[in-house]
This record gives sequence, structure tokens and C-alpha cells, in this order.
Amino acid sequence: MKTAFLGLGSMGLPLARHLLQAGHTVTVYNRTRARADLLKQLDPVIAESPAAAARGAEVLITMVADDAALEAVLLGDQGALPALPRGAIHVSMSTISPALSRRLAERHHAAGQTYVAAPVFGRPEAAEAKQLWIVAAGPPAALERCRPLFDAMGQGTIPAGEDPARANVIKLAGNFLLAAAIEALGEAFALGRKYGIAPAELLDIANGKLFRSPIYENYGKLIAEQRYEPAGFKLRYGLKDVRLALAAADEVAAPLPLASLLRDHYLSAVARGWQEIDWAGLARVAAADAGL
Amino acid sequence: MKTAFLGLGSMGLPLARHLLQAGHTVTVYNRTRARADLLKQLDPVIAESPAAAARGAEVLITMVADDAALEAVLLGDQGALPALPRGAIHVSMSTISPALSRRLAERHHAAGQTYVAAPVFGRPEAAEAKQLWIVAAGPPAALERCRPLFDAMGQGTIPAGEDPARANVIKLAGNFLLAAAIEALGEAFALGRKYGIAPAELLDIANGKLFRSPIYENYGKLIAEQRYEPAGFKLRYGLKDVRLALAAADEVAAPLPLASLLRDHYLSAVARGWQEIDWAGLARVAAADAGL
Amino acid sequence: MKTAFLGLGSMGLPLARHLLQAGHTVTVYNRTRARADLLKQLDPVIAESPAAAARGAEVLITMVADDAALEAVLLGDQGALPALPRGAIHVSMSTISPALSRRLAERHHAAGQTYVAAPVFGRPEAAEAKQLWIVAAGPPAALERCRPLFDAMGQGTIPAGEDPARANVIKLAGNFLLAAAIEALGEAFALGRKYGIAPAELLDIANGKLFRSPIYENYGKLIAEQRYEPAGFKLRYGLKDVRLALAAADEVAAPLPLASLLRDHYLSAVARGWQEIDWAGLARVAAADAGL
Amino acid sequence: MKTAFLGLGSMGLPLARHLLQAGHTVTVYNRTRARADLLKQLDPVIAESPAAAARGAEVLITMVADDAALEAVLLGDQGALPALPRGAIHVSMSTISPALSRRLAERHHAAGQTYVAAPVFGRPEAAEAKQLWIVAAGPPAALERCRPLFDAMGQGTIPAGEDPARANVIKLAGNFLLAAAIEALGEAFALGRKYGIAPAELLDIANGKLFRSPIYENYGKLIAEQRYEPAGFKLRYGLKDVRLALAAADEVAAPLPLASLLRDHYLSAVARGWQEIDWAGLARVAAADAGL
Repeated sequence: MKTAFLGLGSMGLPLARHLLQAGHTVTVYNRTRARADLLKQLDPVIAESPAAAARGAEVLITMVADDAALEAVLLGDQGALPALPRGAIHVSMSTISPALSRRLAERHHAAGQTYVAAPVFGRPEAAEAKQLWIVAAGPPAALERCRPLFDAMGQGTIPAGEDPARANVIKLAGNFLLAAAIEALGEAFALGRKYGIAPAELLDIANGKLFRSPIYENYGKLIAEQRYEPAGFKLRYGLKDVRLALAAADEVAAPLPLASLLRDHYLSAVARGWQEIDWAGLARVAAADAGL
Repeated sequence: MKTAFLGLGSMGLPLARHLLQAGHTVTVYNRTRARADLLKQLDPVIAESPAAAARGAEVLITMVADDAALEAVLLGDQGALPALPRGAIHVSMSTISPALSRRLAERHHAAGQTYVAAPVFGRPEAAEAKQLWIVAAGPPAALERCRPLFDAMGQGTIPAGEDPARANVIKLAGNFLLAAAIEALGEAFALGRKYGIAPAELLDIANGKLFRSPIYENYGKLIAEQRYEPAGFKLRYGLKDVRLALAAADEVAAPLPLASLLRDHYLSAVARGWQEIDWAGLARVAAADAGL
Repeated sequence: MKTAFLGLGSMGLPLARHLLQAGHTVTVYNRTRARADLLKQLDPVIAESPAAAARGAEVLITMVADDAALEAVLLGDQGALPALPRGAIHVSMSTISPALSRRLAERHHAAGQTYVAAPVFGRPEAAEAKQLWIVAAGPPAALERCRPLFDAMGQGTIPAGEDPARANVIKLAGNFLLAAAIEALGEAFALGRKYGIAPAELLDIANGKLFRSPIYENYGKLIAEQRYEPAGFKLRYGLKDVRLALAAADEVAAPLPLASLLRDHYLSAVARGWQEIDWAGLARVAAADAGL
Repeated sequence: MKTAFLGLGSMGLPLARHLLQAGHTVTVYNRTRARADLLKQLDPVIAESPAAAARGAEVLITMVADDAALEAVLLGDQGALPALPRGAIHVSMSTISPALSRRLAERHHAAGQTYVAAPVFGRPEAAEAKQLWIVAAGPPAALERCRPLFDAMGQGTIPAGEDPARANVIKLAGNFLLAAAIEALGEAFALGRKYGIAPAELLDIANGKLFRSPIYENYGKLIAEQRYEPAGFKLRYGLKDVRLALAAADEVAAPLPLASLLRDHYLSAVARGWQEIDWAGLARVAAADAGL
């Protein structure tokens, strides 16, 4: 399938590589060209602009940092949307707001194109290892047509209905649940430490006997060992995703007080200069607030 | 081992039964005698007061509702503590404050007795099925001596050091983590529902692909199906435990803002008349606040 | 002074009237023309578009609902900014984000124009009675030149420096303080009512002996009497302003947990259908959460 | 009137002095005798125990630190209650829980005595200057009989009904409102500072034009100038009072999320070692969380 791939960050690069390795014809574009060069031995076409990449593509895949970045590569100067052929599909894999997803679905529809929201669960290592889960929402025929691409990129694809916003909300709800678990562990560990209980001991019991979850295990260990660097997923992106969850909830009048708490703590972490550490470093705020 | 068992509620009754079935000599006491009669075919001695039960016991086990109930059976009229022989061990299995645990440890010490805190993780069904985890803290020799009793009551015993307060804090931290997961699921589901995403669909992804935790599975299902009756663990007990976590944290100046949020929501649930439903019903508050 | 006035809502209309009555030459524009007709006997020029109003004006005053409305009248189709002469001043009186204020200051600067932020404190009755306070920030010469207009519209003008964002932040901080007082009164009254203490009795003591503030008096009475209709300032605008305060704080990494709480409660009020009542109706949420 | 006065702290000492100066016969008791000696030139009887002070008194006044201290002087070793004559009145002026107030009312009733709750609003300086407001609840005849004492101690007495708990709840609600205003100012100032707005400038506008409240003025200045020492009212007492408000609200199932936030922030202040500064120092937490 003739594919254009925009955004070769820590998530996008391995995905583009998987597509190339699976034999797809891929034209790539990245704001800083050096990232594209990392794919050189797989011989992609390297485009000089989003528009150049989109021209003639059957499928356009985007994996960028946020709403603003996605709007820029699609609708900005030399943007991809006007250059994309009628009949093409845009597979939007970034973690963005459901509101933007709906707006883009309309714009693509007006241009005779199809929009598919396909955000993913998993960190860069999972992307490298083809272990991402892809949550895909859009017209069934489009999802079907994209299947070979999804199969090349992730360990599985979860269909999430026709309304693309649903996929984005599921992604945001998932990240909210992860951040909530991090906060809960951070507070529990702070309490424990004040009574002389090591986080590792508490984790052993709470996860070993109760939760038995790889999420609690992995994040629990990061927090117990205060191992926040290098960041698997940067704290400021965690803040971004919590903001998106709150904005999505605001649009439908759903208060999420726990998400508000997460946002305030992430914001305090940024105020203390911790924006580049792993988002599990949220737990540092609970510790600092307890004087630890 | 000559054992006195005080408190035959939904947790205490199956534990006393396991002890009797394992061949221990058990004298039981319950405020309302009818509960004790349920054990009749196992032929326990049924005492008329805590003191009567404690007299001559090598080990005194207590499993009651809260701090006040424990103080009453130990130190109230006809209380067990003064009647318990020197050299005996008090195994305190209720979910109580670490402060009371420390106070009782001193009282028992002054009386030539030993105090062991041994709260448990698991609901009544788990108690029936001998699937409880027992977290035990106290003098090593006392823990060792109680091992046959622990083995008869639970699926495993987790040693938690000498300071009995540690076991209570671990128990409270564990329940806090559970309640936090319930709140997070409740908010995530409320958000999802506003976008037409069924809780079961969201749970399938969030737990099936991310958390892979029996806790998220079980509580998630209860919430998704709004199946809060009959209660496995009553909401007002959940509130009690969150209060205890906050009080324990207050003593050591550890703010737990997520626990404060849980407390406020549990309290609102009680204000709405939901105190007798399952504590997973906390999720009803998030739904109601979102107008659902 | 040749003035263009855009936005004749419940705040803008009385302000435009004051200007006309003070003898200024005013061209008015409102999205729905009927509002402009209410000024007819004062003989304003009624423009058919923002651009038409701005053409030839020395000062452009805007008083619209929010960021989006302001961007629309300035930069949308037939927007005022491109039509405004070089050398003219834009006095932006709406409650908007400091971020938009700074962006507009740049845009106007690039067009050879001057931007002044001049948000106001006071409700529509105060606007009618010329009792508003105007907080004005911008280049001193521009503020000086606008003085006759400010004098015609309010009871006083508070200079707030050169950076226009400062005026917007002061406005948002002020509204945040008001909403915080409303929430505090709402919670205190809910507590009191549960002990049989009428809100009026509590208010009498708390404001009569402690705060002695007209704000506590006025909002306290609205809440005590549950007199939320007709709305002096609609709850959904209160929510909007709290959102703006949070967004302004987010930009500079200042967590405002009390504002987060306000936002969640306002959002819950909207979810319950209370968006059109007075923003003092926030107190209804505390009452409802207490089962009252 | 023959009066016993227990508790000569920073509040009790000036009150006892006022009574002596007004010509009442006062027997005083304080845990540390040195405080009593400060009254020597007014020639009080100095008792060696609460019981000794209470013996023969018509009215017993207590002004101590908290629930535990009050229970100790009344019901502990050499406690006042058993020594107080039948027919006597206990005027309880400490800031205590409504629950203890009700319990004491019963105890006194059983002893043929009368209980009056009479907490006060005002700081030590106000006590010195006879500027306290006394909120008094109890049987009307008892209130009437105590009037000369109230008149000697404060600037006015506010009757609050027969149920003594009402006076305590009013006191706690009042202090909650004060702490809420402190928190709101602290957050608003933190936001302002991040935009280069000095707290004093913001206060000038917010209080000068909006609130016009001596409370906002006084606390606002303390916070703006970060003048937290010497403490007028210590932060740890502020925490104590917020705890009492939350406990009183918990008893009647009224969630007070703003009070929870206050508690968490006060607790964090204690964790950072700020327990002895003025309770306006709560604002330091908002500043620290914003990285200021």
C-alpha cells in the first residue's frame, strides 16, 4: 500500500520501520530531517514537506506530539490534507483530543477522504518490539483496508466503532487510569515510608497479593527505586494527556476530580523542574508534600 | 493451642471455623450469641464474655468491626485483656488504626503479654475459602508460635516486622490502593459513557490490554454492571478504612489528597443513602456528579 | 473621540450607552442587530460588520463573551483588526485569556495599532449604574488617551502596568477569589444545615462579626435564600472564567487546586442542568453532595 | 459570681484578668502554675488542681487547647466535673468538637449541672482588648445567668440556641471560612506572582474594590509580606480546627472538599516544619507547589 508517514519521533520511527520491513512503500516526513535518515538502509522515500509526502498516497499515517503539531502538518504551510488524493485514508495515531478528531473527520470528509483515529497503547520500547495495541475507530471499510498496516505495526488492533472520537477517548481514559495508579502508588509509598515501610515491601504485598498487574509492577518499581531517568514517557507528556482527558470531559460536562488532582500534581512537578523525567515521577510530588 | 476467638462477624466466623476444623481448642465469644451457635456442630466452647473467653487462653484472637469495638472487648466491662494470662499472645486481626495497635502493644507488654497485629486481605468469600492473606507484625517468637493458627486460617502469612503498627499501615495502604482503583474506574467509565462507550468495552481494553489485574477485572465488572448488592464489603466500611488511612497519615504528617477525595466521595455516597451497598458503589458518585 | 464598540450584550450595551451619553461619537456593532436598536434614541451609527465599525475609528472597544468571540470579531470574516486604521487603539474589555491578550497585542503592534487590555469588575447592574471598576494595562500613552472613555464608563480605572496580560490575570484572579468565597459559603452552609443552623444565622455571624464584606453579604444572601434566578452572572460564565484562570495558571506552571475544585463543581452543576442560574448556585453542588 | 477558671493560655489569661478586673471572685487553675502567677496583682485564688478550683464554684469556665485537654481537666485525675456543685454551670469556651460538647452536656446534666458552649471568635490581641465575640449556646436561663461574665470578657455575645453543639459548629464553620480565604489568597497570589503581579497590588484591587473586608485586608497583608512570625494563631492550631470541622461534617455526612484541601495543605506545611508559624502561612504551600 502506498503510504505516507508523518512524524518520526520515538513512537513514529519504529512504526515506520515496521511498515518498511513489511514491504510497504513508505514516504516519510519529519520536521527535522535527521530522524528520517535513521531509516535510510530501508530505503524509504524522504519527503521535504507534509504535502510532498501526501501527494499520491493511498494512506496517510500521522504520529506527532499533540493537537497543534497535527494541525500544523495537516493544515499548515505545505500541509498534507490538501495534497492528499480523494479516496485516501488518514490514519491518525497521535494522542489528541476527540474534538480535533471530529473536526478532522469532517475536513477529510469534505475533501472526499476518510479519517481513522488509531491511537496506541504502549511506550517506545513496545513500539520497537511490535507490542503496541492499536485502538482504531472509523468507517469499517477503511479499518478493513488499513488492516495490513495495523498488523505490521502492532501486536493487535482493537476496533472501537465508527465515531473516531471514541478511540481518542479510550486512549485518554487509559492514560488517565495509568496516571491514577501512579498517583495512588506514590501516596501509598509516602505513607508507608513515614512508618518505616520500604516501597518495595509495600509493592510486594499490594501487587504480589492483590493487584497482580504488570502495570503496578513496572510503575511500582520505578517509583520504589526512584528511577525516573531516562524517561520512558516524559512527565510533560503525561501532563499533556491528563489535560486532554480533562478537556474531553469538560466538553461533555463530566467532572473528573481525580484527573484534576493529577493535573495539579503534574503541574507542580513541572514547576519544580521535573518535566523531562518519567511520568512515574509524579510520585515525587506526594513524597515532597510529605516532607520526604 | 488453647485459643480464644472474639468476634464472629462475616470475617471472624469462617476463621474460627477453620481453627476448629484444624483441631485447635477454641473458645468463642460474640456480642450476639446467635452467631456463635452457627459453629455448634464443631463443638467450640461458647463464652459469655470476652473475659471468660480469655481466661486460660494461650492465644487470644480478635476480629471486630473497628477501634471502638476492639477497645470494648479488650478493656471494657468484662474485657479480655485483664483476664488473659501472662505469657499469652493477642493476635489482633481487625482493620484498626496503627495508633491503637501501638497502644495495645504497650498495654499487653505491661501485663506480661505479647501483641501481634495480623490484619488480613480478602473479602468474606476469601475467608470462607481459606484464601486470605495475613499480614503479621510483632515479636518474631510470637509470630513463630502463632504459625499453626495462621496456617489454619489463610492461604499465606506475610511477615511485616516487629512494630505491629507496620502491619496495620500495610493493610490500610492496601485498601487505599483498592479504593483509588475503584474511583479511577468510576471516573473513567463516567467519561466514557458520555462519549457512548460502554464501561464493559472500556474495561475490556484497559484491563485486558493494560492492567491485566484481577482487581480491575472484578471491581470493573461490578461497576460496569452497577451490581452493588448484595455488598461483598459494605461502603460504610470502605469509608471507615479510608478514614483510618487518613488518620494514620495525619499522625505522621503525610498528606494523601487522593484519600481525601475518596473520603469526600464515600461521605457523599452515605449522604445519598448508599452506605449499605458494596464499596465499589463509590463509582455511583462520579456518575451522579456527571449527571448520569 | 471616534469610537467603535463591538458587543452589546448585558455588559456592552450599558457601556456603549454611557459613551454616547457622554457625547462620544460611537459606531456600534452587534452580531444580532436587535441589541443595537436598543440604543437608537441616542443615535449611534449602527454598523453591519465589525470591519465597517472599525473603519476610521480612533478607538475600538470590544466587550464580547469569550476568546473565540473576540477572535471572530477581530480576525474572522469581516473582522475589525484589518479594517482598523494605523495609530488606533483597541481597548479589549472582555474577560479573556492573558495568552490571547498577548497574541493580540502583537498582532495590533504589527499593524501599527495599540492594544490595551481593560477588563472590568462588576455585574450588569453595576455597568448600568456606572459602578464598574476598569483594570487597564497597556502603553501609558494609550491609557492616557483612553481616559475620557474610561471615565465615561466606570467609577474608576486601575492602572495595571504595560503588559496587557497583567490586567487579564488580575481579572481572573479576582473572579477566582469570588468563586472561592461562594464555594466556601456553600460548604459552610451545608455543614450548618446538617446541625440545624440556618444559613442566614451563620452568615449573620460569619459576615457580621468576621468578614464584614459586601461580597460575602450579597453572595451569602443569594445562597441562604437559594435565589439563583434570574442570574446576575450565569453559572456557565463562572465556569468559563475558572477555566481561564486554570489555563492562565497552567501556562506558568502554577497549580491552583482550589480552582480545580471550583471547576469540577461548576462542571457538575452544568451536568445537572444548572448552567443558566446565577454562578452563586455553585453552592447547590455542596448541598446536593451532602444529600440536602 | 463565684467563678472557677481553668486554662490560662494566650486566650484564657486575658479573659481571667477581665473577670478579676470586673470584680468577680475567680479561682484559677493552670497546668503550669507560672501562668497563674501572672495574675497575682489581681489577687485570684490559685488552685492546685481542677477539682480544687471547681469546688464551691457557681460557674466553671474552661479555655483549653483541645478535646483531649478539656476531657483531662474535667474527667481526669483531680478533674473538675465531679467536684463541681450541683446547680453550677460549666461555660466551655475552647474550640472543641460538637460531639464532645454534646457528651459533656449529658454528663453535666446527669450531675445536676448545666453545660453552656461558648466558643469565641478573635485572636489573643482581641482577647486582651476585650474585642472577642462569644457564641453561646445552652439553656436560656443559664445563658442569662452568665451574662455578667460574658459582658466582662468580650465585646458581645451571640446567642446560638439551646443545643450546645450549634455554638461549636458555628465556631468551626467560621474558622473554616477564614482558612478558605487564606488558601484562596495564597493561590491567587501565586498565580499573580508568576505573571509579575505583586501580591500587594492584587490585594489592593481584590480587597480594595471587591471584598472590602478587614479579614482579607489583614490576612492578605500577612501573606503579601510573608510575615508569619510571630504567630498570632499557630498553623498547627489551624490544622486542628480544620480537622474538627471535617470530623463534625463527617458525623452528619456532609463532604467538605474545600476543607479536605485545607487539611492536606496544612498537613504538608507541618511536614515541611512550618507548624509554629501563623496559620496564614498556609499560603506558603501554594507558593512552594508553584515552584516559588
